[in-house]
Amino acid sequence: MTSPAETSAGAVLEIGNRLSAAPSPQLVTAAFAEEVSGQGPLAPYLHLVEFAHVITLSERGVIPRAPARELVGALLDLHAGGSTGAVAELGDLYTNHEAQVAQRTKAVGWLGTARARREALTTAYHLLVRERLLALGTSLARLGRALAVTALTHADDVMPDYTYLQAAQPTSFGHYVLGFAAPVMRDLERLQSLYGRADLCPAGCGSMNGSVAFQDRAALAQRLGFSGPLAHGRDAMWQADLAIEAMALSVAASVGLDRLAEDLMIFATAEFGLVRLSDRHSRASKILPQKRNPYALAFVRGLANRLIGVAAGVAASGRTPTGQMDNRMQSYGAVPEALDACAKAADLMAEVIGALTFDAARARALLADGACFASDLAERLCLVLGVDFRSAHGLVGRLVTRLEQEGRTLASLSQSELSDACRAYDETLPAVPDGLLAEAFDPKACLEARRDIGGAAPAQVRRQAREFDDTFRHRAQDLAATTHRHAAALSRLVDEARSFAGRAP
Amino acid sequence: MTSPAETSAGAVLEIGNRLSAAPSPQLVTAAFAEEVSGQGPLAPYLHLVEFAHVITLSERGVIPRAPARELVGALLDLHAGGSTGAVAELGDLYTNHEAQVAQRTKAVGWLGTARARREALTTAYHLLVRERLLALGTSLARLGRALAVTALTHADDVMPDYTYLQAAQPTSFGHYVLGFAAPVMRDLERLQSLYGRADLCPAGCGSMNGSVAFQDRAALAQRLGFSGPLAHGRDAMWQADLAIEAMALSVAASVGLDRLAEDLMIFATAEFGLVRLSDRHSRASKILPQKRNPYALAFVRGLANRLIGVAAGVAASGRTPTGQMDNRMQSYGAVPEALDACAKAADLMAEVIGALTFDAARARALLADGACFASDLAERLCLVLGVDFRSAHGLVGRLVTRLEQEGRTLASLSQSELSDACRAYDETLPAVPDGLLAEAFDPKACLEARRDIGGAAPAQVRRQAREFDDTFRHRAQDLAATTHRHAAALSRLVDEARSFAGRAP
Amino acid sequence: MTSPAETSAGAVLEIGNRLSAAPSPQLVTAAFAEEVSGQGPLAPYLHLVEFAHVITLSERGVIPRAPARELVGALLDLHAGGSTGAVAELGDLYTNHEAQVAQRTKAVGWLGTARARREALTTAYHLLVRERLLALGTSLARLGRALAVTALTHADDVMPDYTYLQAAQPTSFGHYVLGFAAPVMRDLERLQSLYGRADLCPAGCGSMNGSVAFQDRAALAQRLGFSGPLAHGRDAMWQADLAIEAMALSVAASVGLDRLAEDLMIFATAEFGLVRLSDRHSRASKILPQKRNPYALAFVRGLANRLIGVAAGVAASGRTPTGQMDNRMQSYGAVPEALDACAKAADLMAEVIGALTFDAARARALLADGACFASDLAERLCLVLGVDFRSAHGLVGRLVTRLEQEGRTLASLSQSELSDACRAYDETLPAVPDGLLAEAFDPKACLEARRDIGGAAPAQVRRQAREFDDTFRHRAQDLAATTHRHAAALSRLVDEARSFAGRAP
Amino acid sequence: MTSPAETSAGAVLEIGNRLSAAPSPQLVTAAFAEEVSGQGPLAPYLHLVEFAHVITLSERGVIPRAPARELVGALLDLHAGGSTGAVAELGDLYTNHEAQVAQRTKAVGWLGTARARREALTTAYHLLVRERLLALGTSLARLGRALAVTALTHADDVMPDYTYLQAAQPTSFGHYVLGFAAPVMRDLERLQSLYGRADLCPAGCGSMNGSVAFQDRAALAQRLGFSGPLAHGRDAMWQADLAIEAMALSVAASVGLDRLAEDLMIFATAEFGLVRLSDRHSRASKILPQKRNPYALAFVRGLANRLIGVAAGVAASGRTPTGQMDNRMQSYGAVPEALDACAKAADLMAEVIGALTFDAARARALLADGACFASDLAERLCLVLGVDFRSAHGLVGRLVTRLEQEGRTLASLSQSELSDACRAYDETLPAVPDGLLAEAFDPKACLEARRDIGGAAPAQVRRQAREFDDTFRHRAQDLAATTHRHAAALSRLVDEARSFAGRAP
Repeated sequence: MTSPAETSAGAVLEIGNRLSAAPSPQLVTAAFAEEVSGQGPLAPYLHLVEFAHVITLSERGVIPRAPARELVGALLDLHAGGSTGAVAELGDLYTNHEAQVAQRTKAVGWLGTARARREALTTAYHLLVRERLLALGTSLARLGRALAVTALTHADDVMPDYTYLQAAQPTSFGHYVLGFAAPVMRDLERLQSLYGRADLCPAGCGSMNGSVAFQDRAALAQRLGFSGPLAHGRDAMWQADLAIEAMALSVAASVGLDRLAEDLMIFATAEFGLVRLSDRHSRASKILPQKRNPYALAFVRGLANRLIGVAAGVAASGRTPTGQMDNRMQSYGAVPEALDACAKAADLMAEVIGALTFDAARARALLADGACFASDLAERLCLVLGVDFRSAHGLVGRLVTRLEQEGRTLASLSQSELSDACRAYDETLPAVPDGLLAEAFDPKACLEARRDIGGAAPAQVRRQAREFDDTFRHRAQDLAATTHRHAAALSRLVDEARSFAGRAP
Repeated sequence: MTSPAETSAGAVLEIGNRLSAAPSPQLVTAAFAEEVSGQGPLAPYLHLVEFAHVITLSERGVIPRAPARELVGALLDLHAGGSTGAVAELGDLYTNHEAQVAQRTKAVGWLGTARARREALTTAYHLLVRERLLALGTSLARLGRALAVTALTHADDVMPDYTYLQAAQPTSFGHYVLGFAAPVMRDLERLQSLYGRADLCPAGCGSMNGSVAFQDRAALAQRLGFSGPLAHGRDAMWQADLAIEAMALSVAASVGLDRLAEDLMIFATAEFGLVRLSDRHSRASKILPQKRNPYALAFVRGLANRLIGVAAGVAASGRTPTGQMDNRMQSYGAVPEALDACAKAADLMAEVIGALTFDAARARALLADGACFASDLAERLCLVLGVDFRSAHGLVGRLVTRLEQEGRTLASLSQSELSDACRAYDETLPAVPDGLLAEAFDPKACLEARRDIGGAAPAQVRRQAREFDDTFRHRAQDLAATTHRHAAALSRLVDEARSFAGRAP
Repeated sequence: MTSPAETSAGAVLEIGNRLSAAPSPQLVTAAFAEEVSGQGPLAPYLHLVEFAHVITLSERGVIPRAPARELVGALLDLHAGGSTGAVAELGDLYTNHEAQVAQRTKAVGWLGTARARREALTTAYHLLVRERLLALGTSLARLGRALAVTALTHADDVMPDYTYLQAAQPTSFGHYVLGFAAPVMRDLERLQSLYGRADLCPAGCGSMNGSVAFQDRAALAQRLGFSGPLAHGRDAMWQADLAIEAMALSVAASVGLDRLAEDLMIFATAEFGLVRLSDRHSRASKILPQKRNPYALAFVRGLANRLIGVAAGVAASGRTPTGQMDNRMQSYGAVPEALDACAKAADLMAEVIGALTFDAARARALLADGACFASDLAERLCLVLGVDFRSAHGLVGRLVTRLEQEGRTLASLSQSELSDACRAYDETLPAVPDGLLAEAFDPKACLEARRDIGGAAPAQVRRQAREFDDTFRHRAQDLAATTHRHAAALSRLVDEARSFAGRAP
Repeated sequence: MTSPAETSAGAVLEIGNRLSAAPSPQLVTAAFAEEVSGQGPLAPYLHLVEFAHVITLSERGVIPRAPARELVGALLDLHAGGSTGAVAELGDLYTNHEAQVAQRTKAVGWLGTARARREALTTAYHLLVRERLLALGTSLARLGRALAVTALTHADDVMPDYTYLQAAQPTSFGHYVLGFAAPVMRDLERLQSLYGRADLCPAGCGSMNGSVAFQDRAALAQRLGFSGPLAHGRDAMWQADLAIEAMALSVAASVGLDRLAEDLMIFATAEFGLVRLSDRHSRASKILPQKRNPYALAFVRGLANRLIGVAAGVAASGRTPTGQMDNRMQSYGAVPEALDACAKAADLMAEVIGALTFDAARARALLADGACFASDLAERLCLVLGVDFRSAHGLVGRLVTRLEQEGRTLASLSQSELSDACRAYDETLPAVPDGLLAEAFDPKACLEARRDIGGAAPAQVRRQAREFDDTFRHRAQDLAATTHRHAAALSRLVDEARSFAGRAP
């Protein structure tokens, strides 16, 4: 004697119809279990897809009014009840869903009329991805503003800028931090562009090229709040590129976060001492009592690595003959998860940036040996004395080397030593003017001189930070408006379902 | 005694200035050699960058007029001479370039004034990527048109559509092929969006945050034909996201090509027999005399795999503390190469699609057993008899199973057998009307019925194919116009350089 | 007022000791939640690690006898109770575990004496990986035997062998299938080699270079049933290569499975018709009543894609400065999961192979056009008539082309036509002997002729299949013995813990 | 009128035999060009494969003696002439090779008798991979010895060990460095294990399942110096797992190098100041005169990223139906290149390690604030006063926090302050004994205490460093012996070819 669960599994898995035998336990354990495990977040969206599908087909006269009302009623109950866990014995999320409907109404027979499970799931997936994109956009805009505000605050705080982690030139913490806002802005542009491609509805395609039971794809798209239907039915069902693009966005965003985290991890060492993380973003060691580990940063770094791998896996899974479910299996779960993980990491990083302490005194001290000003000095020799740049650069390079051998810093260079070096290079050179060295080694003067577009001059940084902040604010407003519009559309759909099912509004 | 090459290496590598010793042979073999090997295609663009740099700095009074003319003259000679191979002993492409200039003029001392090698190379890279994007766009538009034209030709040619490689529903070869044009269109949208981010000029940033020797970034950008300067200097020098995005475009495009290739590889088997490749896209076997191997398709498939990997590597290489040359080393070579490989593969696939033969008789024969019409039959039972879809689906499924056991095809089903099966399911059902089976098994009728947006109805396919073709044509025109505009800008720059150097126009 | 959970979180997260503030909710949601989510399977192994740690430190006099007994008692209760879910508010698995112990005994103060959480978790991870490797090995050996047995059964069943999916040469299904056993054998060799590196104990390293509270690493390793301690403490704590190697094994094994699945997916089409999957490994469509989709095969293919990505992510996560928790965060969860997924997929594929039906008549029919025998014919012209191979190959190639143009198959070639063609090539050639064509087109004769090592001669295939089967059987026995030995060691450890805690055995 | 090159292309590409038309220019540009570009390093090995093939088939009576001698003579000339570049118009390396032979002798007709091009190339690939593995092993052993020797030299040089880049515990530079030798040792173990799988000969399989023209696979393997033939013909031709495994070795080895490079990059900053790279491994900046950029380290880091990507691409390319040339196209070039790049990077890193300067005084200074000794202090409170570890750890943690707030270091803690803190925790605690603090803060004592296996005690480090050095030395000797054996076998084969062709020895 079979248990109710087995009966149910038999029905939704079509055992006794096309198939003569139940799936092997090994298939359930290995395959169904993995497939269903990533589909959980699609469940509430699947209900919305059903509302639109049943109401539209009823309007068109395909599903008779009475069972259609029954069906929508049962779906409303399921939707209200929250998602109940799907089990591998009942197959994927869709056949679990069918079994749940079957427990509530005999009208289940009209469920999925002239529709592949894949269409229902893919439409739910578009709804979920659309929502996750808006959420990620909101988090990125928040991060962008946190970076812009920090840049504004620290536009005058000098520090070394590094290449190869070797002090390179003087900059401000403000200019440094603002550099990380630019890729966030580009991520938002990418997101917006991708959003337009995701906000199209795959529903109403039969198996993939249309249906005898004509469905009105435009009505389906409109009910679900999409900007329209996806143009081609087969493409709508099997798109591989959207998942690749969404993963690339996640990778770009998380690598952007990583790069800031990589730097802050080093800047937060005792040896650099430039920044100190809040205790709220740190973790204690269970063995080393003195440790305040920058756990938030290590986490962010780890995320980028993970997503680089997932992106490769998702792309590889697009690589089959077309019409294959393994094209979709991984992306249903992985893509929304990646977007969500990025949003959380962006929120975390926005907090970290807002809460960290910059040690301006330590930063100034790191400039004190003068090494960072070597190129400024070379440029001034070039501008003031007319030495060509390669010679000026070589001359300063040799000075640095000699002073280092003498155990001295570049900052200890005297005007006469510089003059001697210049004359040794070319005895016809004019004398080094008074003040050249002082100016070349003055962090404030060096910053002020960088006044071209995108330079470190405090006024430039402030202007650009304000522009970035404004743009991020506008983006956040647009995203909020779109989010609101979607929520309203889906809420209208639930209201329509209630009304259709004869429920109180 | 050192050779001239060694002397030259010493000079451009700053041996004797900051460094006291030449690079170890191991560093040359392992590192310099790999770095320089990918930078070759940047060489001609580097000359253009130099023209803009020297002329602008001369205008600004930083480089005196006389050596500036000398320098531009030497650069013109180099540019005219075509790229001479760079050698690892002289470091990367930039120091090779410096050595080449040094052989021509003493004014080399003014080369790279107040500029990092990275700025020069990154600007050249933007020029190259910009051009490769336009070329890829052109190839994708060509492929898109080839697909649309093929779709138009075959809008009435029925064939099975497959899921899991099992015949699923009737479609036309036109509808099938048109499905591959949709991702190409999205690739073009992505390309356009990315192009806007790539068409910004990184030049003029000093090491990364500006320069004492004020440079006029707007003038540099304008001279090189960019739409403007990149906003933030540090960001301009170290962007990791653009390479990630460009690789994602390459992956999306090549996976799109792959999916068509995967199918055609199977459709071209003797067993399927749906298509036959041109001999011009085939390769003979050296052992098997009968083989006409679909080599073009295997190649396309292999490309997607390779690019998925390169994309992962490029993304991982962005993952370091900022200001690191290893962020850029891989992308200088890999990104332009990937865009180029995609363009070539798209061109090849456009040719393959245009030259292949579709066997319409074989395609019709594959529909003859009626299996593909099972869902059409179920839908008609639902629409005509009012059977709910799950029951109709189960009923047809059981019929298929029974006929299979009897060694019969679904197409052999008689009206009375169907009526019996319907009454066995529900004895109150009306009789199966005459003609229902015939209509359900008529490929033409089935196609015509799929007349909603994106369906397989020939009129739909033709309409959509024409729209796609129009859009691709317009895109191609826009791309041609942009390509022309860039070429003109760069040509003006060379003219300006000639005039600046006092050369005949 | 704080809740007990908050108090507990405060204690185990060291709030009020080194840290002055609780983690931000964002850190909990983003980071702790992700870290803890992958660590679940480590929980029971963590208890075993604790038994060994407490007992050994008590023996050494570091932990006094009374609290040590208390602690082991509490741990035994936890271990018996099964794993209770860890929550992100309490941090990672380790601090959750500490909170669970704290609820049971005040002796929790001695938990983790002179040990990093990482050491406890990494040791648990080695125990888990070791077990998963043995399980994977067992599954691979089972798959290998299934392949060998199938090969044995079908050593005489002729079919075409394919390259580029174009029929190439005659083979047997037995020879074909046996080809997939060879990589399984190599996977087992890799697994064994990796196993030796995983079966070493990282425990007893303090933070990473030893401890004042001397711990006796040899005793820890022995208690946990490892073959010995990992040689170097710092390496023991931070190995990145083992995870890379284990993922590569998973990738190699899953790609091996994929390749068989790719073929079977095509062989199972109606068009090829070579094999038929069991209904128990198929899935019905919810829209297409006629479908028996080869779901098991699509699943297996999807797995390889996913693991290729995870492997890239795990490798990238090793790429940081050393001593970073993000090196380990991903691998704790991902590596055991990958090994498990591979084992399940191998078990599924062993079932699939055992249960599928090979259609020998269809396979013979696919050879009937003679195309597959073209190279056999060319070789015979070479051997019998002394025509050089390139000429014989070209001659047959031209014949194939001509017959194709005439709408004929190669099998329709008559002896006189062949003689004519030979003489046209070289009029001095001897006559084509009687029987040459018949022999060249006789599948059985062609197979028998392939009698060198690894060829398709049935006797060769049977011999090799038996050897493979024997080796797989011995491997399975060795793995079972090792599995038993480990289980016994860990069971002894639990007994020792009971006895230590004064519990009944 | 066609050019000679075109005629030649026609012949080797079988135009006019099976194919009626030459490849399209697009196929040549896109596909042939890419395929041939990675195959260059196979060329000399292809000649060796031909010697073995022709001589063996001649012995067996398949190729008549006279043309066989001709053929071997022509091949000897080609082999002596060094590789002449292959061109895409002539197809892949193999058809280029055939064209080169055709220019020299009419006996070219016997080339490739009963053999696929793939067999010849795959055999050449095994020869090349085998050699590259030995070279990589030699480089890894060299690196291992450099690490062991450095460890020996610095076993007494104290420094902080870091986790999260925060100073964690005292260690020695010797112990630190030796930790990187352990993964190198495992890489060598992996290499040896893989070598056994690579040192098997794929030759003699016909297309993939044997040949009518019996070939004696054992003789072919023996002539080419392999340990034997690969067991199964189809597997021999299409292995995907070996490339996956070889790439995983490259990834593991390069990630191992990367991790050391990541650390040294940070240790070499002015802020850390622990090490200084040789000028021979540094690169000067073209704009910043003061810079000595650790270019060698950045390069090594970049390599790991690249190889992670290539490994993903190679694995993905194994994922097709079997018998596909795209399975092999990427790996022929990518795998040997990766092994070579790893070997060069290992050699470079061995040099870097040998040539860098460790600043022992700076390292001691970094320990001076006492932070690193916090866990040693906690452990001593635990061992000496009997405080449980969690309490001792918390007590020290609170002390660190308090001192930090007072602007003091942990090293400034007095005995009375510690006693007060202990009594405040538990007033029944015994007094803190004299000398406990001094001992806890004495780097030398802390190191000596870590005397268990793998700990930082100098004697332990020295013992282990010597063991490692010994093992690496033996490995290097074994690798040298194997390399010699192979060279001798291949040299014997060339001699045999000379003698066969009647050339002077």
